[in-house]
Amino acid sequence: MADHLRHRLDDDLRTLSDELLAMGAVARAMIHDALDALVRRDSELARAVIERDHEVDRLDTELDGRAVEMILRHQPMGSDLRYLIGVIEMVTDLERIGDEAKNIAERVIVLNEEPPLKPYIDLPTMAATVERMVGEALDCLVRRDPDGALAVIYEDDVVDALQDQVQRELLTYMLDDRGAITRGLHLTFLAAHLERIGDHATNLAETTYFLVKGQNIRHTDGMRGKGGG
Amino acid sequence: MADHLRHRLDDDLRTLSDELLAMGAVARAMIHDALDALVRRDSELARAVIERDHEVDRLDTELDGRAVEMILRHQPMGSDLRYLIGVIEMVTDLERIGDEAKNIAERVIVLNEEPPLKPYIDLPTMAATVERMVGEALDCLVRRDPDGALAVIYEDDVVDALQDQVQRELLTYMLDDRGAITRGLHLTFLAAHLERIGDHATNLAETTYFLVKGQNIRHTDGMRGKGGG
Repeated sequence: MADHLRHRLDDDLRTLSDELLAMGAVARAMIHDALDALVRRDSELARAVIERDHEVDRLDTELDGRAVEMILRHQPMGSDLRYLIGVIEMVTDLERIGDEAKNIAERVIVLNEEPPLKPYIDLPTMAATVERMVGEALDCLVRRDPDGALAVIYEDDVVDALQDQVQRELLTYMLDDRGAITRGLHLTFLAAHLERIGDHATNLAETTYFLVKGQNIRHTDGMRGKGGG
Repeated sequence: MADHLRHRLDDDLRTLSDELLAMGAVARAMIHDALDALVRRDSELARAVIERDHEVDRLDTELDGRAVEMILRHQPMGSDLRYLIGVIEMVTDLERIGDEAKNIAERVIVLNEEPPLKPYIDLPTMAATVERMVGEALDCLVRRDPDGALAVIYEDDVVDALQDQVQRELLTYMLDDRGAITRGLHLTFLAAHLERIGDHATNLAETTYFLVKGQNIRHTDGMRGKGGG
């Protein structure tokens, strides 16, 4: 590739990476605000999260289209091409994370119409964990850190354990009091939405690992699969 | 592109399409068998579904790698390139469908250890609907039928309505009898897994629409978004 073309591709790749990180920041803010809306019983904030999902959807369409266009224009080889395909995959995961945060916010609005079932302890911890995983997975791409990406993947076990703990606890509330069943169900699903965000963060970390090390660790022994849940 | 290269690319694309359809057939069989295992209380069959997820995972890794390799080798332009990126996206959706079918099978094994909560009517209907949607989305790609792909996308509303109906009904069982709560929860999640398969079938249909018409209808007004649920 001629120098000036290489230069232009590098510029385009840098811009795309910046936008991917910006999209990640929006997704993280949505997770954070959705749980804040639960803990502080702030349905206005929950509605703002739902509204923000349009921004993530727009970024999905835009970055996806941009990456495809760059492949068509630059006809990149090897690692550049892999990187662009990786970005397309990561954009999809971030968009799904936005969807899950929106799902959480919708349940929060319903939950806020009744008194709280219990003080929330594990759910905010779960949310903080998956939010950090999303940020770390993207940071590891920037600083080309495969070990950091692996650490994100392993952290998903903590999220799964927290989900299990939350669901067992909610079940005891539902068994004790039929008046708790509807709220218990919403909170059980809320934990499941957070667990799925953990799965998507795992996907992000797996893509990062692949882009940095060139090795596909999806579905390999000792690593977590991408679906789960 | 020289004739013999064009010829080889066409051959490779055809093989890849065949394998994509074969992967779709496996995913559909998993959905079908998982629900059959519920209705017929056949935990052996459920275990076979869980085992089969490895096959879907293997196909995911293999077809994904093959599509990337074809892009690198043939450096295709325009619609060929878009097709290959579309295949990469579809393979991911099929892999997630396999995961959801596996999740269903795992819950079926637990459910089969207790007496059935009720005769299952809507859940098999939901399963048959999403199974057909997955098949249709792929068939529409083969016969290049954008209208058929749109029909699949609209059918997801039926799936969502069925999920709502199932969950409301299960809630009444749980409210009436605390002994029904655990089974009710598993069945509520089972419906949610089917609903997510419907979302993935919608994604498949959106990708098909994009590949046939060249127009991205994700996140557009009047169309369903890809996450949902």
